[in-house]
Amino acid sequence: MGRELSALFDPVSVAVVGASDDPAKYGHAIAAQAVRANGRRPLHLVNRRGGTVLGRTTAPSLSAIGEPVDLAVISVPAAGFEDAVDEALRCGARAIVAITAGFAETGDAGRVRQQAVAERVRAAGAVMVGPNCLGIADNTTDLFLASDSFTPGGVALLSQSGNLALELQLRFAPHGLGFSRFVSLGNQADVTLVDLLADCARHQGTRAIAVYAEDFGDGRAFAEAAASAGKPVVLLTAGRGDASARSAQSHTGALTTSADVVGAACRDAGVELVASPRELTVVLAALNGGRRSSGRRVAVLTDGGGHGVVAADAVEAAGLTVPELPAETRERLREVLWEQSAVANPVDLAGMGEQDPGSYAATVAALLAAEDTDAVLLTGYFGGYAAADGGLGGGGTALAAGEQEAARLIAARHRATARPLVVQSMYPDSPSCHTLRAAGIPVFDATEDAARAVAATASATTGTGLTPLPRPAPPLTATGYLDTRRALEAAGLPFPAAREIHDESGLLAATEEFTGPYVLKALHLLHKSDAGGVALNLAGPAELRAAFREMHARLGAPAYSVEAMADLSDGIELIVGVNRDPRFGPVAMVGFGGVLAEALHDVAFGLAPVPAGRAERLLRGLRAATLLDGVRGRPAVDIAAAASAVETITAFAAAHPEIAEIEVNPLLVRPRGVLALDSRAVPA
Amino acid sequence: MGRELSALFDPVSVAVVGASDDPAKYGHAIAAQAVRANGRRPLHLVNRRGGTVLGRTTAPSLSAIGEPVDLAVISVPAAGFEDAVDEALRCGARAIVAITAGFAETGDAGRVRQQAVAERVRAAGAVMVGPNCLGIADNTTDLFLASDSFTPGGVALLSQSGNLALELQLRFAPHGLGFSRFVSLGNQADVTLVDLLADCARHQGTRAIAVYAEDFGDGRAFAEAAASAGKPVVLLTAGRGDASARSAQSHTGALTTSADVVGAACRDAGVELVASPRELTVVLAALNGGRRSSGRRVAVLTDGGGHGVVAADAVEAAGLTVPELPAETRERLREVLWEQSAVANPVDLAGMGEQDPGSYAATVAALLAAEDTDAVLLTGYFGGYAAADGGLGGGGTALAAGEQEAARLIAARHRATARPLVVQSMYPDSPSCHTLRAAGIPVFDATEDAARAVAATASATTGTGLTPLPRPAPPLTATGYLDTRRALEAAGLPFPAAREIHDESGLLAATEEFTGPYVLKALHLLHKSDAGGVALNLAGPAELRAAFREMHARLGAPAYSVEAMADLSDGIELIVGVNRDPRFGPVAMVGFGGVLAEALHDVAFGLAPVPAGRAERLLRGLRAATLLDGVRGRPAVDIAAAASAVETITAFAAAHPEIAEIEVNPLLVRPRGVLALDSRAVPA
Repeated sequence: MGRELSALFDPVSVAVVGASDDPAKYGHAIAAQAVRANGRRPLHLVNRRGGTVLGRTTAPSLSAIGEPVDLAVISVPAAGFEDAVDEALRCGARAIVAITAGFAETGDAGRVRQQAVAERVRAAGAVMVGPNCLGIADNTTDLFLASDSFTPGGVALLSQSGNLALELQLRFAPHGLGFSRFVSLGNQADVTLVDLLADCARHQGTRAIAVYAEDFGDGRAFAEAAASAGKPVVLLTAGRGDASARSAQSHTGALTTSADVVGAACRDAGVELVASPRELTVVLAALNGGRRSSGRRVAVLTDGGGHGVVAADAVEAAGLTVPELPAETRERLREVLWEQSAVANPVDLAGMGEQDPGSYAATVAALLAAEDTDAVLLTGYFGGYAAADGGLGGGGTALAAGEQEAARLIAARHRATARPLVVQSMYPDSPSCHTLRAAGIPVFDATEDAARAVAATASATTGTGLTPLPRPAPPLTATGYLDTRRALEAAGLPFPAAREIHDESGLLAATEEFTGPYVLKALHLLHKSDAGGVALNLAGPAELRAAFREMHARLGAPAYSVEAMADLSDGIELIVGVNRDPRFGPVAMVGFGGVLAEALHDVAFGLAPVPAGRAERLLRGLRAATLLDGVRGRPAVDIAAAASAVETITAFAAAHPEIAEIEVNPLLVRPRGVLALDSRAVPA
Repeated sequence: MGRELSALFDPVSVAVVGASDDPAKYGHAIAAQAVRANGRRPLHLVNRRGGTVLGRTTAPSLSAIGEPVDLAVISVPAAGFEDAVDEALRCGARAIVAITAGFAETGDAGRVRQQAVAERVRAAGAVMVGPNCLGIADNTTDLFLASDSFTPGGVALLSQSGNLALELQLRFAPHGLGFSRFVSLGNQADVTLVDLLADCARHQGTRAIAVYAEDFGDGRAFAEAAASAGKPVVLLTAGRGDASARSAQSHTGALTTSADVVGAACRDAGVELVASPRELTVVLAALNGGRRSSGRRVAVLTDGGGHGVVAADAVEAAGLTVPELPAETRERLREVLWEQSAVANPVDLAGMGEQDPGSYAATVAALLAAEDTDAVLLTGYFGGYAAADGGLGGGGTALAAGEQEAARLIAARHRATARPLVVQSMYPDSPSCHTLRAAGIPVFDATEDAARAVAATASATTGTGLTPLPRPAPPLTATGYLDTRRALEAAGLPFPAAREIHDESGLLAATEEFTGPYVLKALHLLHKSDAGGVALNLAGPAELRAAFREMHARLGAPAYSVEAMADLSDGIELIVGVNRDPRFGPVAMVGFGGVLAEALHDVAFGLAPVPAGRAERLLRGLRAATLLDGVRGRPAVDIAAAASAVETITAFAAAHPEIAEIEVNPLLVRPRGVLALDSRAVPA
């Protein structure tokens, strides 16, 4: 899966076209970085005026180098871009990093230009990153072709923003995080985010993949590549709001996708979604040690009641729980702690830590071993006793030594268990916190960061799953109401009895086929309900006939559907729809039907097809999900049947790319079984 | 309003009882701080064993000092606490700071003990902070009676946690924030949060009041004091979740209030609510300059598309908007900026800042002057060009000098306007950012912090208002269904026609009084609806009589109410209730009625009484508020009448403290007017 990118990340030789001694030019910054790899592979600097750059003799052109170039960085004005690429290909380049800007991000003409270049690159069997990119770097192969250097580490960063990469570089440092690779995505005219994601998934030097993307390209392929990456993928996405979508459009010519769809794709693919560089750093710091919690129950340990309370709230706000500790654990803690210490959860040393820093270690050890606990969060002053600028310990005191010993004991106990431990400290740069970090325990200065980190260990790499798109079924020849209805029925979705009629004799035949009450629907109307083309609850043949005459006189529709009226009294109405997102393909939406759904947007999304198990989780995740269990004495409805219907509808839609949009509304869910009461399809 | 606390914050003389040379004792830390004010006022150290502490001769007792003591800090073991307080009062103390712990936080016996002490203190005309407190400090009077020193500044911190105060001290420093006062609240046996809030509101040296409270004491008085403080009040609250409530209880014996009620009180009182020390710091940094934005429209300016997109999303997530800039502003920016710069909002310099740092200043100036903009957010690399460790400028270069000049221009333009400007920078400690901070422009390193800061300038000191509790009305003599209904009707709430009946002759009289359809309700049942004691939609006298006979035979209720059945077809059902919170008094809840409300908890809260204007805002703030405007062809309902009914109900409840709980459910809101269809009251 994915393209062969070895020429990009480990080329045999490199040329920088547009290398310059002018510090205001990007070709200067790139060249200055490129020479850092001196000796690893041949490096050629190309400047059309010749002379020297950074004290090295330049070639006036790629051809003038006189030997093949494996990777060419092209940082020339837009007018000369195509010629430079063509020359690089002639010189044998298997990879091109195109810095030059002025293409898709400027409009359609630029898009056409970059597409033409990309086709020539592909025809030559080469690959191209960009154009409009800021370069690439691979610390595992000493390839430095971006304007800045990136601290080595295990994170591959694939980014559509250079400045955000610089901010991440600053944020990573205190957590000991660094970069295996950096790729500025640019306009993705040839090599795409998906290609790079797949390659980084295979890359041995990469332990986690961080992505900042405004445009996912083939979003479905992105989700599939992420789901099968086998390492954490963290996505800093943007364009959730109106303004950011507008901006991303002008920034990289991006086609942005609604936040609902991106959120659903990430959940299904197990991608951790973040909203800021800070949150991205927190999540990576949390996942860097490789620990995952097996549940959402967090034990909070503090040395001050206020910190414990604030942390407990933050943990719960992050979607985790802080349950009261089981009796055995409380008893175990009682043996270790003071009388005034609280042992319920949060556990509060209540001053004991200051008298006996060993109590920190003893408590952490007990909590790392406690039953019914999935992760431990230590919050408060710990770190301050040995901090040079701390209020109480200072360097060299017995208290400071005690705290440092406690840190070593905590680190050792942490190594002996598999459970995540996350620390918030007022003194994250203190010697004790350094001891913890060195042992792979993430330390944060802010409570909400620590809580977010624990949440990351609980959710990462636990995607709900992706189901491959099915092979397309034979296309529907028509997408009228009854055509769609019949096709869905054939696929296994139950509908009430129905008969298409054109006149009163057909109507009579229908009443002989099934009993009332009846529903009458006028066909071939765009919005039959809004147009008054639906009559419900017609008690018998007489009422049906009266309704038919009235409707026919008013609307003159050529055909009608007579249907058995379902008993709505003990059911709940759902809406199930599938739309086609230009990036992510068929996307399912489920929610409660009727006025409720419209007023509350209480809907959930998933990449179609949605198997029944995942459908049930979507339904149970709706805000008003308790309605399904029966409230106010109403019976619980058949969620399994509803989930199965969602599977049927979404699989059908996924197999019919000729349909742009399909909706079953309402899908009546009853205590036993479901009935689709109406449906609608819009051709692509 | 509030108590006279001059002896607490500016005493004539001070004694520290329990002063010690043992660094492990709290009496040592307090004494070490107290001596820092040397010379400002007489300071006496008291140690019952005599000798010296910190090189000063101690007195063996307060009495042994031989002169009156105005303020006594008491840091002795719990067993000697009462004696120490009594001695202090005998020695003329007008203020006591009670460090000693072991009272209400340990249980009821401790609570009784501290109450008895507090009564003796009050009887002596003195005031007491604590017990179980960590001390107080007032930088404006050189009073240092806590274990740590606090950087001077304009924030008064009233806190139930010592460690959180220390964390805030660390967090304030980079923002130039400091403390006017610090008070550790302790158990609030005598001096309460409300007393202190009122005093800090009057205190000239205090510009903003920060509160960390687990227990609000008299929450209503807290809200009233905050609403009338005339300066920002920021509340770090806790106990929103189950675990934190459990912990706060054991930490300070707090009676916690539901997050819904605290949130409503803060909204009404204009208190800025925060969830962490970091957020508290961000909000105070934002409000420190005194600027308030007059609306929620934010112009985002960036030097990199990615930062602009992330910031726009963060701003929208903070409840603000990032609207497209008006044409005139875009044209003005077009004159100043490059062709490739984006001017819609976010405004993206797109590389221009690096070539011409003056473009930052020109753009900020244009946005600070732009119409249809309420605040400006600058985000990205700015600051990095002149940062010593920056990637591009370095010290001393022309680019660095240009950026610093731009910072000076931005600071000058900021001074010339009243609009808030907030900055996020990757280099918040750079010289350029120092220039901005010195000019009162808040600078943050994280995008989400900058967005939160802008939100604070838009919402602070804009409470929706508090309405004083009305004088109690004559108590209801009975709270049965018809009693409550009549009382609410007399207060102005419309109900359908009704008549209490006991037999079929009464039933006949009712049908002569008003026409059907009818409702029949059995009276004197606890939950009449659940018990089958309500029959709806009885078409005429015959159906009513049949229902009466059936119900009477089944339930044997002694009395019934016959009511005119309201036409529900074009109305929406609300629920309006008032509960009594032990801290905040009568609290109103409004929401949509029926299954919807139960399933979704789509409700809003406010301190009762809720005047109509505020009630309308609560209704419009419900998630499903669009239902009120009519959806799916339904008519809009009479929101003004609904709001007026909420005023009537909540004012009634507030005037009847003998009622613990009152609920009108459903309140039918129709296109014109409202009707209360059922009501219920529970005596206190």
